[in-house]
Amino acid sequence: MKYVIIGGVAGGMSAATRLRRLNEEAEIIVVERGPYVSFANCGLPYFIGGVIQERSKLLVQTAEKLYQRFRLDVRTESEATHIDREQKKVTITHHGKTYEENYDALILSTGAHPMRPPIKGIDQADHLFTLRDVPDAEHIVQYLQQHQVDRAVIIGAGFIGMEMAENLAERGLKVTIIEREHQVLPPLDPEMAASVEAELKERGIEVLKGKTVTGFEEKGAVLVMDDGRRKESDLTLLSVGIVPESSLAEQAGLALGIRRSISVNDQLQTSDPNIYAIGDAIEVAQTISGKAAVIPLASPANRQGRMVADILSGLNRHYKGTLGTSIVKIFDTSAAVTGLSEKMLQRYQIPYEALHTSPPDHASYYPGSSQMTLKLLFDPEVGKLLGAQAVGKKGIDKTIDVLATAIHGQMTVNDLTELELAYAPPFNSAKAPVNLIGYASENLLEDKVQHVQWNEVDQLVKQGAMLIDVRTEQEYENGTIQGAVNIPLDNLRQRVREIPKNRNLIVTCQVGLRGYLASRILAQKGYKVKNLDGGYKLYKSVFPEKVKE
Amino acid sequence: MKYVIIGGVAGGMSAATRLRRLNEEAEIIVVERGPYVSFANCGLPYFIGGVIQERSKLLVQTAEKLYQRFRLDVRTESEATHIDREQKKVTITHHGKTYEENYDALILSTGAHPMRPPIKGIDQADHLFTLRDVPDAEHIVQYLQQHQVDRAVIIGAGFIGMEMAENLAERGLKVTIIEREHQVLPPLDPEMAASVEAELKERGIEVLKGKTVTGFEEKGAVLVMDDGRRKESDLTLLSVGIVPESSLAEQAGLALGIRRSISVNDQLQTSDPNIYAIGDAIEVAQTISGKAAVIPLASPANRQGRMVADILSGLNRHYKGTLGTSIVKIFDTSAAVTGLSEKMLQRYQIPYEALHTSPPDHASYYPGSSQMTLKLLFDPEVGKLLGAQAVGKKGIDKTIDVLATAIHGQMTVNDLTELELAYAPPFNSAKAPVNLIGYASENLLEDKVQHVQWNEVDQLVKQGAMLIDVRTEQEYENGTIQGAVNIPLDNLRQRVREIPKNRNLIVTCQVGLRGYLASRILAQKGYKVKNLDGGYKLYKSVFPEKVKE
Repeated sequence: MKYVIIGGVAGGMSAATRLRRLNEEAEIIVVERGPYVSFANCGLPYFIGGVIQERSKLLVQTAEKLYQRFRLDVRTESEATHIDREQKKVTITHHGKTYEENYDALILSTGAHPMRPPIKGIDQADHLFTLRDVPDAEHIVQYLQQHQVDRAVIIGAGFIGMEMAENLAERGLKVTIIEREHQVLPPLDPEMAASVEAELKERGIEVLKGKTVTGFEEKGAVLVMDDGRRKESDLTLLSVGIVPESSLAEQAGLALGIRRSISVNDQLQTSDPNIYAIGDAIEVAQTISGKAAVIPLASPANRQGRMVADILSGLNRHYKGTLGTSIVKIFDTSAAVTGLSEKMLQRYQIPYEALHTSPPDHASYYPGSSQMTLKLLFDPEVGKLLGAQAVGKKGIDKTIDVLATAIHGQMTVNDLTELELAYAPPFNSAKAPVNLIGYASENLLEDKVQHVQWNEVDQLVKQGAMLIDVRTEQEYENGTIQGAVNIPLDNLRQRVREIPKNRNLIVTCQVGLRGYLASRILAQKGYKVKNLDGGYKLYKSVFPEKVKE
Repeated sequence: MKYVIIGGVAGGMSAATRLRRLNEEAEIIVVERGPYVSFANCGLPYFIGGVIQERSKLLVQTAEKLYQRFRLDVRTESEATHIDREQKKVTITHHGKTYEENYDALILSTGAHPMRPPIKGIDQADHLFTLRDVPDAEHIVQYLQQHQVDRAVIIGAGFIGMEMAENLAERGLKVTIIEREHQVLPPLDPEMAASVEAELKERGIEVLKGKTVTGFEEKGAVLVMDDGRRKESDLTLLSVGIVPESSLAEQAGLALGIRRSISVNDQLQTSDPNIYAIGDAIEVAQTISGKAAVIPLASPANRQGRMVADILSGLNRHYKGTLGTSIVKIFDTSAAVTGLSEKMLQRYQIPYEALHTSPPDHASYYPGSSQMTLKLLFDPEVGKLLGAQAVGKKGIDKTIDVLATAIHGQMTVNDLTELELAYAPPFNSAKAPVNLIGYASENLLEDKVQHVQWNEVDQLVKQGAMLIDVRTEQEYENGTIQGAVNIPLDNLRQRVREIPKNRNLIVTCQVGLRGYLASRILAQKGYKVKNLDGGYKLYKSVFPEKVKE
């Protein structure tokens, strides 16, 4: 058998090496347009920031080593320009020379390229960069070394934008982020992204939300925004998303999916049974919604690479979809997401319940514990998990990984209460964050509590609901939500007669726990009461200007 | 309704507060023998070590605060001495006064006490301590403050023994651990515990394995061991296990389970339908084996406490068993386990396959990554997960928590390959440790590789197997397993003719990965070959004296 793989990074290389392990005698050719194969593309921002100091660390493998160990025929700086599906041949160009290579099966691992919107003046902007591969990173580093660069602008506050903001700031640059949406980190919901934004600002990074760049002037030295505002920039990074690299597939007449991605079946087979496709270039089913999506992440790409090799070797495998688990470090804060966000659930009109908690990452009596914000999304009838997000300084990766595993297992919030996780004071609490959010969710499902969200409370108060802050007098004095009256939880039973029976009540505390206790007391005394989910802390993080301090 | 709860820590307090949240009008009495309720017993070793400096941090709640917030009637220094099941009354003694309290439902959360074997001279040993509660910890601290204590002996190398060894060493004591079994940390398998032992020794802690203390002499200043060896000790901690505190239950004629634990059904009900029991005192079903077990851990105790309150409040709950997930920090090393160990699988005669890997906790090109040792146990036919263990410096809690979640979901090794975990270079690798061990396990299940274990290789070599070390020449020179010949992986295809076709082959490398690649090459060339699971690294950690260096 002769396999030709187009694209030698992540999925392509996983496919190639797995093919060899399963087929010692097969001919395996890897065609890579760039100068390197198997490089660590997720490390590029850290190479630019100097956290990864040697370029060689990014180069996981070389063509020579891959031949020695796997007998792979790796051809760098070689571009596949045409597929002849009839003859099962691919045309390859290398340093101006063109030749053909036939195949029994062809694997397209062509990836994606950074989106480059048709902004006025973009083609004249000469210190405008995108970041996809090692040469891109080298260009940026070179530019930083050879020029006086003080101010950087990052267009797009997604994962790469965040990582680049951190790394350029660590190099001493004054960084501005411009994001079209009204929040940073669009994969997260806005109230979860709020504390990431706070971290960015604390680190001296300017965040301009709800703005688009409409023009580059003075060869890119000045950016013009839709509100007319101008921003000077010595270095601009464009990170507004990716475009699946499907031109070769399209030209060959393969079926395309959304956003011009390559369409594949659940065995990663394109519309041509001899051509497979994997990685950032393909359309996948999002696991929870079943909807078509383009989810450019390294883990699924690697998984697909191995899987296509298995399928080609006769093993029975089916790709069940991509969940979309991802994480980003922003200085000392981590932000992670798995499954669907609230925004996506709304877009897909999937019914859900949302819940926020703020547990410590480990027992608070043991030094160094840190409070995280955790959000869970689940089916309002049966409690099946739909998604989760976490932001904080510690334990974010662990918490999201446990929840991603639970989602894979199609678990419910009741399962979360039963998870038995590793506990000792340095690592966790006896009731882990996922246990606690499971309990809180179970209370909602079983009508032990009702709640309102951070973005509903103002409207309800306007409509006449009474807002009771059940924190201590001192906490209340230090800041509360406009219109809240203070009845500390520990006095609630004595002072309950102060509360009119006929009003709708909303109780709030710092993070939602005491509010829950208060709502249990009041509900059992016959009040119509709802707890403010996430409490004052979450509300304040989204509406810092609205709170009364 | 009137509830009496005997025992005001962990499960007892979880039950009491949840009962209140669900039943604002119920009468809830908590009877606690000691001076404190709701204290952080898992923090005690760290209080002794000075990591937790204020005693107040251990005291999560007080009787007063519990009355204020939850209207709990908490009675400390009150001992329940008798249950009159007929009359539904319990006799309580407080400071010499005795009275009765009737109940509608009684919850026994009596815990367990440290085992105290009848060793000769034990009753005359006057600086012998056990550690169960705050007064115990205070006694130890007081003793350390008031005496010249240089040498400590810890009898029993379980979780508490390990934590105390670390904390006493951090206080500057010369610490010796004496353990009856031939390994430290008996909940782990011996080859996994080996690197914990190495960490202990590196920190200057003496570890005496396979030895029991048979006598205390000179008022405990000298310990005598079964081999006649004597050990001087200024302070001795006895941590050889626990005994369920079931005397009250037994006296009341309630059914007992193994090890004199209290027997309960899956609704945590004892043989008397009005009496429930939770926590360290009860017999549970181990989740995987279904076997009766006593598993004294904080997380299950808390879970049971909440559950019993739910059940008493009419919610439909069933306790599905205890998995036994646990973790311990030993200086910079963490060791964790979930599900069944290989030892337990053998004892229960449950068929299994075992696999060891040594992945980095996160992408090795990003600074600070650290290699862990991970062991997976799974069903040899269908791949269902049975247990896991991990030892290392980073990511141990996360890895075990993901696996504990997967076990809860009754997942297989194939599921592990599909888990989509949060990846960015600071947090993980694109192929996470659990993905990788899933792949390796799948290879075993699908006969892509065969392997031998660390404790089988010597015998097989004796029986004539050829042992090939496929690492580089330099690695081989630095140390290998006795009898191994060196053919580096990257030369294997050229030198394959040197290998006789008729011999059984064992290939080995550093951790098992290159050995796997070699075995794939050799198997496809018609050789009968097995890979040494865990490689030279694991073998050497168990048999440091056997390797050729």
